[in-house]
Amino acid sequence: MLKRETLIVSEADIAAIIASLGIDQLMDDTIAALQSAFFEFGNGAIEIRQRTGFVYDDPEPGLVEFMPSMRTRQSVAMKVVGYHPGNPVNRQLPTILATNSLYDTTNGHLRALVDGTFATALRTGAASAVASRILATPESRVLGIIGSGAQAVTQAHALSRCFAFTHVLVHDINRDHAESFAARTPFLRVPDGIVPKAEVFARSDILVLATSNSVGAPPVLVQGVHQPHLHINAVGSDIPGKTELSPTILRTAFVAPDYRVQALVEGECQQLSPDMIGPELHELVKVPERFRDEQRRFTVFDSTGNPLEDLVVTETLVKHAERLGIGRRIVIEAGAYDPLDPYRFDDVAAKARAG
Amino acid sequence: MLKRETLIVSEADIAAIIASLGIDQLMDDTIAALQSAFFEFGNGAIEIRQRTGFVYDDPEPGLVEFMPSMRTRQSVAMKVVGYHPGNPVNRQLPTILATNSLYDTTNGHLRALVDGTFATALRTGAASAVASRILATPESRVLGIIGSGAQAVTQAHALSRCFAFTHVLVHDINRDHAESFAARTPFLRVPDGIVPKAEVFARSDILVLATSNSVGAPPVLVQGVHQPHLHINAVGSDIPGKTELSPTILRTAFVAPDYRVQALVEGECQQLSPDMIGPELHELVKVPERFRDEQRRFTVFDSTGNPLEDLVVTETLVKHAERLGIGRRIVIEAGAYDPLDPYRFDDVAAKARAG
Repeated sequence: MLKRETLIVSEADIAAIIASLGIDQLMDDTIAALQSAFFEFGNGAIEIRQRTGFVYDDPEPGLVEFMPSMRTRQSVAMKVVGYHPGNPVNRQLPTILATNSLYDTTNGHLRALVDGTFATALRTGAASAVASRILATPESRVLGIIGSGAQAVTQAHALSRCFAFTHVLVHDINRDHAESFAARTPFLRVPDGIVPKAEVFARSDILVLATSNSVGAPPVLVQGVHQPHLHINAVGSDIPGKTELSPTILRTAFVAPDYRVQALVEGECQQLSPDMIGPELHELVKVPERFRDEQRRFTVFDSTGNPLEDLVVTETLVKHAERLGIGRRIVIEAGAYDPLDPYRFDDVAAKARAG
Repeated sequence: MLKRETLIVSEADIAAIIASLGIDQLMDDTIAALQSAFFEFGNGAIEIRQRTGFVYDDPEPGLVEFMPSMRTRQSVAMKVVGYHPGNPVNRQLPTILATNSLYDTTNGHLRALVDGTFATALRTGAASAVASRILATPESRVLGIIGSGAQAVTQAHALSRCFAFTHVLVHDINRDHAESFAARTPFLRVPDGIVPKAEVFARSDILVLATSNSVGAPPVLVQGVHQPHLHINAVGSDIPGKTELSPTILRTAFVAPDYRVQALVEGECQQLSPDMIGPELHELVKVPERFRDEQRRFTVFDSTGNPLEDLVVTETLVKHAERLGIGRRIVIEAGAYDPLDPYRFDDVAAKARAG
């Protein structure tokens, strides 16, 4: 690729990557790459910045956030992600729309721009798999899903790559969403049942919470009976004031966040004092044997979205696109026919005319 | 434009906009839009976030930064900008490479992606024009340039749209850069002279500092004689430890930053205590008559780059591209054939095959 070209990997290009590679292989690759990035995190190889953004209520509740990360001496990754819960119903668009970019740290060049909606679902699923492999019992057979929208699909997929589920229990306040879940997860190949929330909570070995619960609304799960070894992947809580688990439940669990400072602001951890919060995911990944006993206890992975996950999934998709020759290469940035003259467009215009 | 399309405005597209509109008109539009945005700033119509980023020394000194802003109920703008001073000599690329994006606050959709290198030069020039119209004497005749690289070109252009210069005095530690400046600024239509730094400082009515002075190096101007009414646009200081004016000089000036909290960290203001810093540019723009007496005094505009400038210049370029039918429209993001199913690529793939 010429230095000045930007590789665009659109949704259609991702479809082509999946058609060639298969979703199982892509998910396995992403889980492996993510686990290795969390292992490396902290030794200077990867840096992240806390996300910032804009939250608003007008014309509809929504937000646009920025999640920066860097693989040292290689790439800076930037995800810009919108969260607009009115999208599916009002606009036939996904709740989460995102674009992920990779910038070359040698020169600042935009190497690639990738559809981030699929990437976000993929990496959020993969992160739960990385956490669950450490904190859930390997004998987990019952997968629970509360909130069965788009994120639940990749959660179930990622977890199914690591556990031999025999049953999937689904609950959603939108009955249509619960009923369509089986059709959206053919890879599970196990019977699913639509059951009340309390039953999902009671019977699950691994539980995924991926709701669009409103800011300020009561938590999705307030109290209830559950398996002593239950592991929850709490995915939905990612805005200040939005929670899925009550403090009552959380206080009885071993809680591991993906990114502590962020989880304290917008994850389930916002309901906990810092001393009640366990290690971060990267600490688990570094010495998983130290946390083996937690597999028999009640554990929560507080997943708010760590920017390094966006770095990893973007690298993974770009790697496959480049290998398979998929994606479009276009020149966007200034080429500096004369680096000292921003108005030196003659050559650019001439080249553009020449095609 | 279809809701799902992203408008790409490349360097070649910007060349086409300029070929149609003329650089004078584009600069005048940008200055006017910027002045009006600074006027509105603070009433909730525009929000900005302080920039964050990654700074490194390996393989070469450089940084990649993020500058977010929002026009409420319209667009979130994100500029990702790289600063790699080795680019012109080592890679035939501009020191500043950037891409600017506009996201729709209704749904998170990436509306446009614009080459940000030209946009950065354009808006930085326009910002100095906005500040100089308030703080410099309208009778300014001598424009001084210290650091005659890419940024100096748009500085000189923007200022020439607001002042009737009769002389331009140029200094650069790189003699070639000083000598090529006249050829790069034909729009000035006044004689220029390459003179020692002290002479530029002594004779200028308006002075632009736009050097690539190194972090930790002494300021470019340490002391010296200057006109009592001198107005300086200090453009180059935008990294912690990089300064162009000594504290001795700064302490005698009325100093107005573009963005106070940022200027305290990375602008000339990092050398001043907060009580020595004057109002921000948006405060000047709201009541310019209150600062008329400053036109007879020594003033400094500490320009570190306010994210609202990136919002404005991106809006301006996109507006002209849309009006003129310039730019490429491509579909990048997920379209949510089924917003609940990230793996629902069948329709996408079919559509891609159908062209």
